[in-house]
Amino acid sequence: TLLKSLEDVHYADVAELIEELSTEDSLYIIKLLDSDFTSDVIAELDEDDREKILKGLSSKEIAEEIDELDTDDAADIINELPEEQKEEVISQLEDVEHAKEIVELLRYDEDTAGGLMAKELVKVNENWNVLTCVKEMRAQAEEVTRVHSIYVVDDSDVLKGRLSLKDLLTTSTRSPITDVFIKNVDSVNVHDKTDEVARIMQKYDLEAIPVVDELGRLVGRITIDDIVDVIKEEAEKDYQMAAGLVDDVEADDSIIELTKARLPWLVLGLFGGLGSVFIMEGFDAALGNYKELFFFTPLIAAMAGNVGVQSSAIIVQGLANDIIKGSLFKRLIKEVSISLISGVVLGLLIIIFGLVTSMDFKFSFTVAISMLCVIIIASLIGTFVPIILDKRGIDPAIATGPFITTSNDIFGIFLFFYIAKSILGF
Amino acid sequence: TLLKSLEDVHYADVAELIEELSTEDSLYIIKLLDSDFTSDVIAELDEDDREKILKGLSSKEIAEEIDELDTDDAADIINELPEEQKEEVISQLEDVEHAKEIVELLRYDEDTAGGLMAKELVKVNENWNVLTCVKEMRAQAEEVTRVHSIYVVDDSDVLKGRLSLKDLLTTSTRSPITDVFIKNVDSVNVHDKTDEVARIMQKYDLEAIPVVDELGRLVGRITIDDIVDVIKEEAEKDYQMAAGLVDDVEADDSIIELTKARLPWLVLGLFGGLGSVFIMEGFDAALGNYKELFFFTPLIAAMAGNVGVQSSAIIVQGLANDIIKGSLFKRLIKEVSISLISGVVLGLLIIIFGLVTSMDFKFSFTVAISMLCVIIIASLIGTFVPIILDKRGIDPAIATGPFITTSNDIFGIFLFFYIAKSILGF
Ligand SMILES: [Mg+2]
Ligand SMILES: [Mg+2]
Ligand SMILES: [Mg+2]
Ligand SMILES: [Mg+2]
Ligand SMILES: [Mg+2]
Ligand SMILES: [Mg+2]
Ligand SMILES: [Mg+2]
Ligand SMILES: [Mg+2]
Ligand SMILES: [Mg+2]
Ligand SMILES: [Mg+2]
Ligand SMILES: [Mg+2]
Ligand SMILES: [Mg+2]
Ligand SMILES: [Mg+2]
Repeated sequence: TLLKSLEDVHYADVAELIEELSTEDSLYIIKLLDSDFTSDVIAELDEDDREKILKGLSSKEIAEEIDELDTDDAADIINELPEEQKEEVISQLEDVEHAKEIVELLRYDEDTAGGLMAKELVKVNENWNVLTCVKEMRAQAEEVTRVHSIYVVDDSDVLKGRLSLKDLLTTSTRSPITDVFIKNVDSVNVHDKTDEVARIMQKYDLEAIPVVDELGRLVGRITIDDIVDVIKEEAEKDYQMAAGLVDDVEADDSIIELTKARLPWLVLGLFGGLGSVFIMEGFDAALGNYKELFFFTPLIAAMAGNVGVQSSAIIVQGLANDIIKGSLFKRLIKEVSISLISGVVLGLLIIIFGLVTSMDFKFSFTVAISMLCVIIIASLIGTFVPIILDKRGIDPAIATGPFITTSNDIFGIFLFFYIAKSILGF
Repeated sequence: TLLKSLEDVHYADVAELIEELSTEDSLYIIKLLDSDFTSDVIAELDEDDREKILKGLSSKEIAEEIDELDTDDAADIINELPEEQKEEVISQLEDVEHAKEIVELLRYDEDTAGGLMAKELVKVNENWNVLTCVKEMRAQAEEVTRVHSIYVVDDSDVLKGRLSLKDLLTTSTRSPITDVFIKNVDSVNVHDKTDEVARIMQKYDLEAIPVVDELGRLVGRITIDDIVDVIKEEAEKDYQMAAGLVDDVEADDSIIELTKARLPWLVLGLFGGLGSVFIMEGFDAALGNYKELFFFTPLIAAMAGNVGVQSSAIIVQGLANDIIKGSLFKRLIKEVSISLISGVVLGLLIIIFGLVTSMDFKFSFTVAISMLCVIIIASLIGTFVPIILDKRGIDPAIATGPFITTSNDIFGIFLFFYIAKSILGF
């Protein structure tokens, strides 16, 4: 049939197609096709699309799909199920060995190496010879889509090294493994954070990395395709936070979903704006002789916002790439220097603007000085808020968005009027 | 010696170390160690650090390093050399075959598959049998760090399919290749853009992809480690553009470099702010009865900015993930709906605020209505500016940053006063 021929298409393409269809049509397709094929389709779907599909399947049907999946994807999907359904699905899994491995993976946090690894890997004992290895490897490789490295362990399963397929193909079959394998192997601990794993795999150009427990025993393997997804998701999350979106939304999501993702930060921005209204009411004596001060508030707010976002973006990226080291005092001096240079250049531009538009010199000088102070404070807020958030275990990326612009708007406007008042006296 | 023991450290770690050292010390290390090792270190450095090192080496020394590198990294480094030095270095390469391959790679644009691929790959003829393949492969694999797939070509080098190492290990040596190889193989064209290649490799979970020319002939191979770098760089670039940084700066760059990256957008923001000053001077008749309008300008600017950035971030990500399809009119309706809902909610909050602070109802109603209009226009600007930029071949990510916030500040404030004037009449 036409539908059966879908199985010749790559599962990632079918997943894309299904995301366009109604839940009913999707379920029709999923139920019709082999779970050998549809399991990969389901694993590839967006979390919210998958949720809708799984609601339409019985626990038995879900178990059939999960039976076909690699342990990492299987565990991820079971983790998404409602609490009461998890055990039911697990108990219906056919392959007991597979089920045990999945249950083991469920123990680990989503954002750790354990939450990302799969149990599928090829391992050999250091005491075997190449021939035994090739035989064992052929058997094990049936279960493993891509072999990458063959890991070498001792009798207690402690990771000793690795062997590449290329090495196996290019050495005599009688050599003992101990002579052939590479003793130095990068590995991560099962509790390491996924972003740290991603950093290591990118730095050392790895395609797979073994995961060990506290005793050094080989417990799983992480492959680069899942790390690529982590890197991509992490980048999109940071970008969305910087843009003031609270959920992981996409352009083709519904109007309701998009509004829900956008409104919270807008409300925060509104409260910030109302705060500025109060501040300016407090300074309304300036309306007498210095009403032009009020014309400069959008400029001040824009400067405070832009400077703050620039500073915080640099820090957030630095934290992500693990290069924010050294003393905070040095960082402070650096940040103040940068804002001092920028502030002086921008201040001079304002003074020139004042001369051209024949503004009162004392007035334009006051605006320039106040703006300089605003820029320095805004850049310090932009620098230290993410550092403090990071120290407290909060994702610093949240600081790059409306959070910084809003607080900088309020602080900036207050500071601007306060300094102007001190100089001009009103 | 102590320095010699550096060769036991991973080249990526040595590269990190060298980035901390002075150019003099770095050169001392590079010249002392084997170019077999230092070539990888040099390839791993940041572009600006590498430039400094290469300036301290003779063309002969550079050629020695390049001789040791894979063709993709070799071509990248030669591309960075001053025009007059390129030929000199190429003419001093020892391995003529290697040199010819590098020269071929120099033809391709940096942002295309050709600019990313390497000539190192393992290929076999479809007419061979498995035994011949294994032999040939062993010979070819000497040159190739990671084999991944073995590509199968016909007599004219046209890509026919692929063979995994696993398949080779698990089939009888007498089978003809034609019986064994997978006829369906993903490939990209040498002129495809790198972000498209990244999208394909991520979607299909590929670790390597063959590159073909217009005639379908196999001309190179792209590996996932280089794609990971592309994804990471692209994400960092978008993030930096959104944050208003013009160069690829890092937290540990010098004060001058950081200031140079930050000042341009700040100057733009300043001009935008001065534009707002003019606009408000035009409406200064409102200072009589409606001076509070001026207290609301930071709120309006913040809303216009936040809404614009949200809209444009969603579009920029949608364009990157290739999901902005369908008619522009539908997109417009969607965007207007979202801003209408958000604007009404925010407007009601302003009216409530007005009631609580016993503001004149007509006044707070006017502010709410004007803000609603500003939000709609700002979101349309945020939506369509990136789409238009993308159509014209300009990176739409530039629209997410200070460009949008600045233009939205100006438009927003003008619109706000214009509508308020129409309603309140001053
Ligand atoms: Mg099925
Ligand atoms: Mg998981
Ligand atoms: Mg790398
Ligand atoms: Mg996986
Ligand atoms: Mg996957
Ligand atoms: Mg992050
Ligand atoms: Mg050297
Ligand atoms: Mg290149
Ligand atoms: Mg993928
Ligand atoms: Mg490469
Ligand atoms: Mg590399
Ligand atoms: Mg981009
Ligand atoms: Mg702003």
